[in-house]
Amino acid sequence: MSADDKRLAYPFPISMRMYREQRQRLGAWLRQSFPEGGHAAVLQAASEVPVNSTDCNYLFVQDSFFFYLFGAEMPDAYGVVLADGRGVFFIPRLPADFATWMGELPTPESVKAQLEVDEVHYVDEMTRVLASHGVHTAEVLKGTNTDSGLDVLQAKLPEGTDLKKSTDYLHHALSSQRCYKTALEAEVLKYVCRVSSAAHVKVMQMVKPGMSQHHLESTFLHDVYYNGGCRRVSYTCICATGHHGATLHYPDNNRAIEEGTMALLDMGGNYCGYAADITCSFPVNGKFTEAQKTIYNAVLDAHDKVMHAMKPGVMWTDMHLLAIRTICRHLIAADILRGDLETLMAKEVMEYFQPHGLGHLIGLDVHDVGGYIEGCPERPTKRDCRRLRTARKIEEGLYLTIEPGCYFNKALMEMAKASLEIKDHLNVDKIEEYAEFGGVRIESDVLVTKDGVVNYTLVPRTVEEIERTMAGVPFVKEVEVYHN
Amino acid sequence: MSADDKRLAYPFPISMRMYREQRQRLGAWLRQSFPEGGHAAVLQAASEVPVNSTDCNYLFVQDSFFFYLFGAEMPDAYGVVLADGRGVFFIPRLPADFATWMGELPTPESVKAQLEVDEVHYVDEMTRVLASHGVHTAEVLKGTNTDSGLDVLQAKLPEGTDLKKSTDYLHHALSSQRCYKTALEAEVLKYVCRVSSAAHVKVMQMVKPGMSQHHLESTFLHDVYYNGGCRRVSYTCICATGHHGATLHYPDNNRAIEEGTMALLDMGGNYCGYAADITCSFPVNGKFTEAQKTIYNAVLDAHDKVMHAMKPGVMWTDMHLLAIRTICRHLIAADILRGDLETLMAKEVMEYFQPHGLGHLIGLDVHDVGGYIEGCPERPTKRDCRRLRTARKIEEGLYLTIEPGCYFNKALMEMAKASLEIKDHLNVDKIEEYAEFGGVRIESDVLVTKDGVVNYTLVPRTVEEIERTMAGVPFVKEVEVYHN
Repeated sequence: MSADDKRLAYPFPISMRMYREQRQRLGAWLRQSFPEGGHAAVLQAASEVPVNSTDCNYLFVQDSFFFYLFGAEMPDAYGVVLADGRGVFFIPRLPADFATWMGELPTPESVKAQLEVDEVHYVDEMTRVLASHGVHTAEVLKGTNTDSGLDVLQAKLPEGTDLKKSTDYLHHALSSQRCYKTALEAEVLKYVCRVSSAAHVKVMQMVKPGMSQHHLESTFLHDVYYNGGCRRVSYTCICATGHHGATLHYPDNNRAIEEGTMALLDMGGNYCGYAADITCSFPVNGKFTEAQKTIYNAVLDAHDKVMHAMKPGVMWTDMHLLAIRTICRHLIAADILRGDLETLMAKEVMEYFQPHGLGHLIGLDVHDVGGYIEGCPERPTKRDCRRLRTARKIEEGLYLTIEPGCYFNKALMEMAKASLEIKDHLNVDKIEEYAEFGGVRIESDVLVTKDGVVNYTLVPRTVEEIERTMAGVPFVKEVEVYHN
Repeated sequence: MSADDKRLAYPFPISMRMYREQRQRLGAWLRQSFPEGGHAAVLQAASEVPVNSTDCNYLFVQDSFFFYLFGAEMPDAYGVVLADGRGVFFIPRLPADFATWMGELPTPESVKAQLEVDEVHYVDEMTRVLASHGVHTAEVLKGTNTDSGLDVLQAKLPEGTDLKKSTDYLHHALSSQRCYKTALEAEVLKYVCRVSSAAHVKVMQMVKPGMSQHHLESTFLHDVYYNGGCRRVSYTCICATGHHGATLHYPDNNRAIEEGTMALLDMGGNYCGYAADITCSFPVNGKFTEAQKTIYNAVLDAHDKVMHAMKPGVMWTDMHLLAIRTICRHLIAADILRGDLETLMAKEVMEYFQPHGLGHLIGLDVHDVGGYIEGCPERPTKRDCRRLRTARKIEEGLYLTIEPGCYFNKALMEMAKASLEIKDHLNVDKIEEYAEFGGVRIESDVLVTKDGVVNYTLVPRTVEEIERTMAGVPFVKEVEVYHN
């Protein structure tokens, strides 16, 4: 981060006003929570992460809380939000000869101009500067995510203060704040979803049986970076074809793409920290078989029904149940499952066919914070709902993925066949026909509005759209708005 | 790593025989070092590395020592080399439901077939299995690199044994072994150097003023992955243009490419662990100015002189001195430096113009192990040599980069001007003309043969070659063999 960072050549400039607004929201919370004054929020930046014991680091990824408030890629910095919303930033004092390796060293002046914060000092001045602002208790917050259950890392500052309680308190407040996207954030999310959608379309139009899965990953990564400015992705691309589609986090992407198989591609760019998370499923040769259509349309029906049901006030767990009930109905109609819908749902059969939740909050983290924070419903215990990453009531401003799926996972099918409750409901011969099918997932990223959702995901979804696009017809789609 | 890993669609299959040979060499060392028997080498795999506190991991990178002996991407495994060279592999026992997320779980049978090791067991069986092989003392070695000075991580096994000494001993032996490339390893290095060279040529042929630096990085990453099967690079690409070329580890790659500037692109693919490390420098508009030619040809002359001098028996420090002396002579001829060559070299002026060593060992790590291991010369203290990453005597089988450079780094030029010894030798007006020049580095990867080197790097090097290639003429080059 050197002095001329303003001359970025990236396609979608982000206004520093976005981060200022986010600091002001946090300031308002500080004033409300600590009317007696003397409190500030202190955020710690991430450090570089070495690749094993080599001399090299992974591409730097900033801590999300820190980035949310300051938009700064700098490692080993601190950022403070005062109760009046002002931002005070602390940069590490680097040895002069770092300039040879890393470029012109940041100074308080250059960083102040770049980040548009109110003050910039060196880290070693932090105690003094905070005291001069009348801050007696400071909570140092560094990365945590209730969704994944990782721990809060904390430090004491100034010395002698027990911060555990207040750090948790700050963590809760910031996680909660991050869930409700501002208008400026929504624009960035819309952008990253658009460029990621375009890259999905590009992959769909170049795939051919006989290629390797890694050709798809490479094409996607190139398209989001070259055309979209997404230097990284928020999660490793899943480029599964054939039976690998039933492996939810298929990590390898290095097998030959075989004729007649389905592809399940779960890929999303990351633009200036903000994530997209999109899954497309389609036949690798561009033409659905009847068997492929059956599963695909089951999942698409679930996806669309949720789109038409989502609005403030509904429970996310109910959306999940709507999705898996829809797929279950299709599986009965296709004679894959036998029995009546209510019985099958009561027996929670869908945990074998969709062993994941309907979706998750998304934002700076692909599995964003705030899924199970205090004051929101706890994780459901029902077997077919327990994988949900949140059970919240849907509210305006939340940003979520909607990603129903249906898989023929070998291990899960064996478990289903071994279940006394379930086995008689399985048409084993029919399931055997799908042994190499893999799976279908359809995943879109939506913003909750006052009466529905906006779907920022711009990819072909119907069988007809997919077949037409894969035949080379240019694909154009507008953002879809649902008033429900 | 599931059962059907053999159906990889990557372009350059690596024979498991390579790793077997490497185990056998280590076995020979064990027999020689511990004639009394009872010793084995135990290697620990790397673990997944989370991205801050998100749910996601970085793309997995295996520990290099472990990968060197087993060629296995699996995290949290152990590998044992017995004194007779046999390989015994230990896989983690994963919960059954991991199969839903990660695919079919590895079994001892599937891993044995894939890795072509002699035995495979679960990690929790290690103590028993080792005892059954008569192993009383085992050294657990996990990642370390003397070049970067990172610590040895070690574990005790079986309990009660002090392993510090023997772990160091094993580390030294393996580092030393890794320096001398086998014929099979050389083929992989040649391959990754070839595909990385081709990607450099592609970038050279697409660059235009007005683009962004990130277009170059994206194009390179895509080309080495799509066409070469390199899913990652060993180090973050350096795509510097203009004055950023003087920042040795320029990390950002996000500025506009300005007309009339030089590009300095340091990029190399990683294929199945093995690294390429190549730098090309050229004018972004495809046509050298006289001022650009002056510096470029100074560095190229240094590069070529070293190519013609390298052979077993010469000292690497002398090669470095040959390179910087050559550049110094050109800087005097260009009236950038004033004074006679011997005086300037005695004053070590080149530390300001080439603030890095001539090159480094390369292999599985881009800065490979073995630079300063026991028995090899220590780091030189001369100011213009102290950045060298090794000071070894050159021997057949070593694989190194040769990368002289010349930079106009603002901070270094200020230091030179402030030096009482140096300042009168600087033509300040001329240096001012190069204020925005950046730098030139020319970096090739070479294998030392019995009487010279083979240069695996296949990129345009002369001014004429570069201008012709950038004008669109297809570039073809054969591997160059130097008999010196």
